[in-house]
Amino acid sequence: MLKGKELPVAFVTFKSRWGAAMAAQTQQHTNPLLWITEMAPEPSDVSWRNLSIQYKILPVYKIGVILAATLLTIFFAVPVTAVQGIAKFEKLKKWFPPAMAIEFIPGLSSVVTGYLPSAVLKGFIYIVPFAMLGMAKLGGSISKSKEKIKACNMVFYFLLGNVFFLSLISGSLLDEIGEYVSHPKNLPSHLAALVSSQADFFMTYILTEGLSGLSLEVLQPGLLIWDFIKSRTYCRGKEKDLYLYSLQYFRVIPIVSLSILIGIVYAVIAPLLLPFLIVYFFLGYAVYINQIQDVYETVYDTCGTFWPFIHHYIIVAIILMQITMIGLFGLKSKPAASVSTVPLLLLTIMFNEYCKIRFLPAFRSHSIQNAAENDELDEKSGEMEHNFDKAIEEYRQPCLVPVSFTQSDSSLYQPLITSW
Amino acid sequence: MLKGKELPVAFVTFKSRWGAAMAAQTQQHTNPLLWITEMAPEPSDVSWRNLSIQYKILPVYKIGVILAATLLTIFFAVPVTAVQGIAKFEKLKKWFPPAMAIEFIPGLSSVVTGYLPSAVLKGFIYIVPFAMLGMAKLGGSISKSKEKIKACNMVFYFLLGNVFFLSLISGSLLDEIGEYVSHPKNLPSHLAALVSSQADFFMTYILTEGLSGLSLEVLQPGLLIWDFIKSRTYCRGKEKDLYLYSLQYFRVIPIVSLSILIGIVYAVIAPLLLPFLIVYFFLGYAVYINQIQDVYETVYDTCGTFWPFIHHYIIVAIILMQITMIGLFGLKSKPAASVSTVPLLLLTIMFNEYCKIRFLPAFRSHSIQNAAENDELDEKSGEMEHNFDKAIEEYRQPCLVPVSFTQSDSSLYQPLITSW
Repeated sequence: MLKGKELPVAFVTFKSRWGAAMAAQTQQHTNPLLWITEMAPEPSDVSWRNLSIQYKILPVYKIGVILAATLLTIFFAVPVTAVQGIAKFEKLKKWFPPAMAIEFIPGLSSVVTGYLPSAVLKGFIYIVPFAMLGMAKLGGSISKSKEKIKACNMVFYFLLGNVFFLSLISGSLLDEIGEYVSHPKNLPSHLAALVSSQADFFMTYILTEGLSGLSLEVLQPGLLIWDFIKSRTYCRGKEKDLYLYSLQYFRVIPIVSLSILIGIVYAVIAPLLLPFLIVYFFLGYAVYINQIQDVYETVYDTCGTFWPFIHHYIIVAIILMQITMIGLFGLKSKPAASVSTVPLLLLTIMFNEYCKIRFLPAFRSHSIQNAAENDELDEKSGEMEHNFDKAIEEYRQPCLVPVSFTQSDSSLYQPLITSW
Repeated sequence: MLKGKELPVAFVTFKSRWGAAMAAQTQQHTNPLLWITEMAPEPSDVSWRNLSIQYKILPVYKIGVILAATLLTIFFAVPVTAVQGIAKFEKLKKWFPPAMAIEFIPGLSSVVTGYLPSAVLKGFIYIVPFAMLGMAKLGGSISKSKEKIKACNMVFYFLLGNVFFLSLISGSLLDEIGEYVSHPKNLPSHLAALVSSQADFFMTYILTEGLSGLSLEVLQPGLLIWDFIKSRTYCRGKEKDLYLYSLQYFRVIPIVSLSILIGIVYAVIAPLLLPFLIVYFFLGYAVYINQIQDVYETVYDTCGTFWPFIHHYIIVAIILMQITMIGLFGLKSKPAASVSTVPLLLLTIMFNEYCKIRFLPAFRSHSIQNAAENDELDEKSGEMEHNFDKAIEEYRQPCLVPVSFTQSDSSLYQPLITSW
């Protein structure tokens, strides 16, 4: 009975880092799908639920998640286009006549026309990262940080599609996509025309993002409301979920990356956007330094595994900028400039390939030399035995961890005046 | 002085297969470009010249070779198009009036129109693999077999471009390419129209290939002539180069793969081609069995490393066939059949991905389990020491190998009557 319930998954503790690095990087069995070794994530980072998924059916989960994320990305366009169409004041008056009342209040009209579209978009977009994380959790990653990286990627491409491109093309979405598919050669010039016409929208987007987005980040209204509801209803008296109070990389990184993308794409076309972006980044720096130092809990260490993805987003931004520039030079009838931007694009792609070969392996696997050096240091300081003992203790299923009441001795439970 | 000439390349002998497999598969240094380990090729397979190329500048060599091969593939079109254009009898009469004389000799006219285009193409194509091998040798591969695999790949894509596609589109090459780039959506239907119109040409191609190509393979006129020239001129009296007499996979595999491709693409469109193909394969089987067993020298063992590439060529053929079918169903106004072929295409691509994950690692690295098992077998039979000693002896630079006159004691040097 129990044998049937046993999972073919195990945490193996090695006596040295060297041995662990060796085992993690080599192929053990002739069938590479039968016996897979990889470095275990941190104890608090293990996704215990996903470990029980059979390796055979993992690709099905992965394809399912990619499909779901793609569908969300594509069909999210429908409500956003509708809302953005309405939020244009001229259309709003036509479809909803009472809105004309806004015109009689001085100042409100300009706020509505300039501010409403991006505020509405922002509201929709706030929910998406959590939906993406929910999907990524079904993707079968063995660690929570990998789930978050997956969610981060999905959110970035979602934002790229639904904020950047959709804001560019607005109205006739299907016509535009049909145009791209049947005439990819015209893409750069088309993109350039669209990008240069939508500079105003992105200026207000950056402004909204900087003012409302970052102030909301400080105030944390969503989290506070969620926490309030949770603590009053079904989680009453339970211990608080620390993960909720950790920095949500999967939400923050794509939003910041999108601002970088907008900045890079508009740097030449509409340089007036850049001062706003600088203010945004300074404000963001101040806010996130505060949040990371004083507000968020550090639940696990990702060891910088998000960096290659941020690098990838920046490369995407640069490539997009260069394609736009090729188109723009063409539109301005400067074919020589247009043609000489093409090698730049190729160089960017080659630089990216070089970075992949040179730096990516450092994020994927620990080098044997490092492992051996660290082993030596441990042996000198005599911590080898201690580390080994600790490693055995650490990886324990959450339900098997003995309940420790000592953990919750916060100041709330301590008497205000110590009795003596 | 000597220190400056030292190369940062070494053959390392391990005491066990297990250790060698471990070292080959792991990343040794934090900088993955600074310390690279891989399994050494067979002693007779080592490309000593390429070992002296610095790893830093290897990518330059590789990109250079790819560029050169691409240029050859693209601009080879020029003479072929010219020759094929002329070889069409109607055009031949127009450009070269004396050719009209052919019409007066009975039977010759049909031979010229049916046979000449593919014979001319065949002549050109015979030289290309050797040119590609020459280029691949500059690519900086550490083993001769890898050079040949590279040449094999380049030759296959060359044949795909210059035999298959160019024969399809003939005449107006640039117009066609422009068409593809600006309207990729029309590619399937366009391809289907072209493929179904050129069935006759490929029938004669397979026929030529089967009759002349395979009989030339048996007779080896090129090799005999080359050998004759060489032995009479600059190589007089020297030892014969064994590599010249080994099976030229880089020439044979792409040609056979192209026949498979033509067969798969035309299987549904022009099934009359298939009997010719079967005759071709039977003939080929007979010829190559004879050649491999009795004619060619086995210089080194590639351990089946060519197989993943043949698999790749077959997948390319299947994908091409499915794209053609999508187009053909569209042309025959069967949109339902056309749309339901699309999932088949996706399944083919997914099958290919699965094969890459499941089977490719077995060709790239030796599994630890296999290595350990073989080590145990060696230890039981007491061959461990012997193997270790042999390994040290084997990898020796060609110029350092002591000249052994005993090797050339062929029947030519032995006296006909032994003196006693």
